[in-house]
Amino acid sequence: MKGLGVSQGIGIGKAFIIQKKALDVEMIKVNDTDSEVKRFKNSLEVCRLEIEEIYMKTLKNMGEKEAQIFRAHEMILEDEAFISEVEMKINNEHVNAEYALNEIANSYIKMFESIKDEYLRERSEDIKDIMSRILRILLGINVTDYDKMDENSIVIAKDLTPSDTALLDKSKVSAMITETGGKTSHAAIMARIMGIPTVVGIEGILEKVKDSDIVVCDGKSGKVMINPCEKQAKYYMKKKQIEMKINKELRKQVGLPTITKDGYKIELLSNIGSPKDVELALKNDTEGIGLFRSEFIFMNRNCKPSEEEQFQEYKEVLECMGDKPVIIRTLDIGGDKEVPYLKIPKEMNPFLGYRAIRLCLGDTEIFRTQLKAILRASVFGNAKIMFPMISTMKELKDAKRILEEEKKELKKMGIAFKENIQIGIMIEIPSAAIISDLLAREVDFFSIGTNDLIQYTMAVDRMNSKLSHLYSQYHPALLRLISSIIKNAHEAGKWVGMCGEAAGDPKLIPVFLGMGLDEFSMNSPSILNSRYIIRGLNKKDMEQIAENTLKLENAIEVENYLSDLFSDDEKENHLNCNDKKEY
Amino acid sequence: MKGLGVSQGIGIGKAFIIQKKALDVEMIKVNDTDSEVKRFKNSLEVCRLEIEEIYMKTLKNMGEKEAQIFRAHEMILEDEAFISEVEMKINNEHVNAEYALNEIANSYIKMFESIKDEYLRERSEDIKDIMSRILRILLGINVTDYDKMDENSIVIAKDLTPSDTALLDKSKVSAMITETGGKTSHAAIMARIMGIPTVVGIEGILEKVKDSDIVVCDGKSGKVMINPCEKQAKYYMKKKQIEMKINKELRKQVGLPTITKDGYKIELLSNIGSPKDVELALKNDTEGIGLFRSEFIFMNRNCKPSEEEQFQEYKEVLECMGDKPVIIRTLDIGGDKEVPYLKIPKEMNPFLGYRAIRLCLGDTEIFRTQLKAILRASVFGNAKIMFPMISTMKELKDAKRILEEEKKELKKMGIAFKENIQIGIMIEIPSAAIISDLLAREVDFFSIGTNDLIQYTMAVDRMNSKLSHLYSQYHPALLRLISSIIKNAHEAGKWVGMCGEAAGDPKLIPVFLGMGLDEFSMNSPSILNSRYIIRGLNKKDMEQIAENTLKLENAIEVENYLSDLFSDDEKENHLNCNDKKEY
Repeated sequence: MKGLGVSQGIGIGKAFIIQKKALDVEMIKVNDTDSEVKRFKNSLEVCRLEIEEIYMKTLKNMGEKEAQIFRAHEMILEDEAFISEVEMKINNEHVNAEYALNEIANSYIKMFESIKDEYLRERSEDIKDIMSRILRILLGINVTDYDKMDENSIVIAKDLTPSDTALLDKSKVSAMITETGGKTSHAAIMARIMGIPTVVGIEGILEKVKDSDIVVCDGKSGKVMINPCEKQAKYYMKKKQIEMKINKELRKQVGLPTITKDGYKIELLSNIGSPKDVELALKNDTEGIGLFRSEFIFMNRNCKPSEEEQFQEYKEVLECMGDKPVIIRTLDIGGDKEVPYLKIPKEMNPFLGYRAIRLCLGDTEIFRTQLKAILRASVFGNAKIMFPMISTMKELKDAKRILEEEKKELKKMGIAFKENIQIGIMIEIPSAAIISDLLAREVDFFSIGTNDLIQYTMAVDRMNSKLSHLYSQYHPALLRLISSIIKNAHEAGKWVGMCGEAAGDPKLIPVFLGMGLDEFSMNSPSILNSRYIIRGLNKKDMEQIAENTLKLENAIEVENYLSDLFSDDEKENHLNCNDKKEY
Repeated sequence: MKGLGVSQGIGIGKAFIIQKKALDVEMIKVNDTDSEVKRFKNSLEVCRLEIEEIYMKTLKNMGEKEAQIFRAHEMILEDEAFISEVEMKINNEHVNAEYALNEIANSYIKMFESIKDEYLRERSEDIKDIMSRILRILLGINVTDYDKMDENSIVIAKDLTPSDTALLDKSKVSAMITETGGKTSHAAIMARIMGIPTVVGIEGILEKVKDSDIVVCDGKSGKVMINPCEKQAKYYMKKKQIEMKINKELRKQVGLPTITKDGYKIELLSNIGSPKDVELALKNDTEGIGLFRSEFIFMNRNCKPSEEEQFQEYKEVLECMGDKPVIIRTLDIGGDKEVPYLKIPKEMNPFLGYRAIRLCLGDTEIFRTQLKAILRASVFGNAKIMFPMISTMKELKDAKRILEEEKKELKKMGIAFKENIQIGIMIEIPSAAIISDLLAREVDFFSIGTNDLIQYTMAVDRMNSKLSHLYSQYHPALLRLISSIIKNAHEAGKWVGMCGEAAGDPKLIPVFLGMGLDEFSMNSPSILNSRYIIRGLNKKDMEQIAENTLKLENAIEVENYLSDLFSDDEKENHLNCNDKKEY
């Protein structure tokens, strides 16, 4: 069976099935509504005690941040509007507490589920979680006895609520599998933080699996096997052993400098999408934030975020990162994303459309507000500013001029900011790569955005599944461009980073190292592996490898050449354990 | 007033208004249906005589091709289904001939007008034309007396039917203006062939203009002035004189070789969209077809065109062109065009989508049929094959392999074709430009497609009006790419052409000449002007100009630099008289 792998790693063990009893609710007409209201209020009290217990357990096992979710649950329990709505229903309609609760809860859940944004929609899980807890208490149904769980259990459930994952004994869980859920569901996020291999979206697994069946779960490929044959089992056991060895090895990388055998220092940074990603970045011993996507502040809302709101978000990340660099990319948004208040007209080719810096230079108010917020936050850490989608010198100069104007404005107002804040640009449009010698004179640094650069260089929409054969980070045209960008930047005395997916690709890291790339920014789970790789390489040797690579004709030749050089059986697993982009 | 200029040049003269009387049709109940049928049939006979006269006039004044349209009119007159429908209406409904004709005619016209394709839709004009002619005859209304027209007349009408334009005495018409019509309306096409400045789409002009008013009409800008002030009139008189001088000068270019002052030979070819464009190409003394867009054969139909149908179209063009080269570009179509039988799924970014060679390599049946048709036609002239949207070496090799397979197939069947037919590719995707050294080894020639190359290099949808400031053929990144493409091709001993709009840009011709471009392919009306420009330049000098251009930072700097070099007041007019792309 195949689902969506949301937290990588291999789990092998006995199935532990969380078969939740259906919470069947009947409508019963009652005369004594007072006692129903009392039952409802009692259930809230019991529920509060349960949640307090879960909160303490989570705080102990996983920390403050994860425990917070249950404070949110408690808040729902204290929500007066909610409580009085249920009471009114009982009183006005003379119905039992279960029915009244269920009706009100469903209307709340429906409201949340109708939200288009995946992240917010998934938050309806919290409401479902707390609502079914109250309902279960009212109905007098017992909870799953997690104490019965053996070592090396594979937890299988229709879905896992936040409180389910909180109550699991992490040390006993080898993997988790659910029938529903997505990449950003709470269980998926928790699984990644806890480091438990997890696959979601395996429909119908509960009908096929029995308690204590042997189950294999590959959180990377999304593959799940029930009672595998001996050969398969052995294969996965071996794979798991290698993985464990590697993970142990990788954890040893924490605290080590990212330096090649011949003493060449590399910066290894994280891509993040919001302040909540900082924790995972630090856990993976990141050396800074190479790409802080500021879009999240602008999405899923009905009006532009204020300067103060933005300031707080940037400040939070900067403070968490201390003196480590944080590169804040200005708004990169366009016609393919729904941001109603920006009133972006529907476009025929949004990827070739009015977006990112183009939009910011067209609507300078939104741009100026963001720049002011970044500048104000800049004194709280080591901030740098990066402009996306630069295609001409004029755009860069216009953006810099506006930044200078905002600096002057702040100075006039006596507000502190980092005067000499570094300015960089994404190189993600072919024209920018081609005139990178000119652009380099005007910036402090480049960051190569391979995802878009591939897309435009190959004229391939990367979301178009019919063209995936043409979208390759191994294509010689892309590698030639990257090589010339680095050369041009270095000739102007500027440093170059990369924040596209290719930066975390174990096969390409040696090539980029050889080309002289100074900074690699990637998804946090790839950092330790990348450090391990870099510490094993000689930069001088890689220069030759890079040169050889540039002579090849096709993407497939490049990939094969690099696979032959940098993969053996053990390494294969090792080198491929980087994650796909999440944002 | 401003409309759409559809045939360039300036006309100044007295208004000659073709105010057609409304053909008001009343329904009259008749008993004697026989005599109504007889009246209808008589009107057909009179109509046939009128059309015969128009046909002879057109044949004499404009040639066989233009006269053909009236043979089509005659065929409608003989269409039995049409005639019997009108007769049946008269007989069954006991109505007068005018009413019956009008009803049937309207149903035909409606059918044609509902067609989505602009070209076919405009053909409804032919039906309208013949139908109103019959109706006019039935109603006993006199035709406009064209003999009353003075020299230097500006013909103004609601619209001009094919027979109107045919009856005009070309030598007396200085310009034409209509209230309705589009770029591909018959009148517009005829106007271009006759070389009469024409503006369409000036709504309401008939209410503002009187017979003998002085009117100025600029067929390039679409500007129209009624009774201009002295200053304006003088300005346009001057402009017209310059234009006439230039046109006279340009006509002298016919038959001259396209050769620089220092003896460097350049090929000057035409872009065409269908066999009907060949005439205009030859009239402008084209040296061949540098781009024959084969899409037109595939559009506006319900099923794939057969090999035989395609063969006939290719053969027609090849035969017309004699031993001059004809570069046939294989199907370049994708998700932004409606080709229902290809079942292309709707795409989010069709310009970055499944199209052109990608589609042909995905659906090789359509590709093989086209290649076979081209190969078969290749013996009738000097055919070359060109593949569009190549982005990788693999695509080129795959396309070539399929071509070889089809050659083998034809050989096996004993069908003749040009064995050593030249193979080229469009360079219109950045990756192809970047690996043009590799691609050059595998082809006989390149043709640089600047329109798409700008679009992908700048990541700008060229149809997106919000981004027109970024879509520029003067951008240094584009010019650098073009320079390297030419260098790479020449190093491999291959020739390079260009078939994007930039090829006909008087400011850029010197630059491309300096870079060593071997062939310029453009819209036919730009050819003589381009020849004039090239014959006035020294290639050696242009090499320095090209080098200087490549050092500039911005598109606007490049454009200003070239304007300063290659424009003075007279030249300004001259150099800018190239037409915009039509297809």
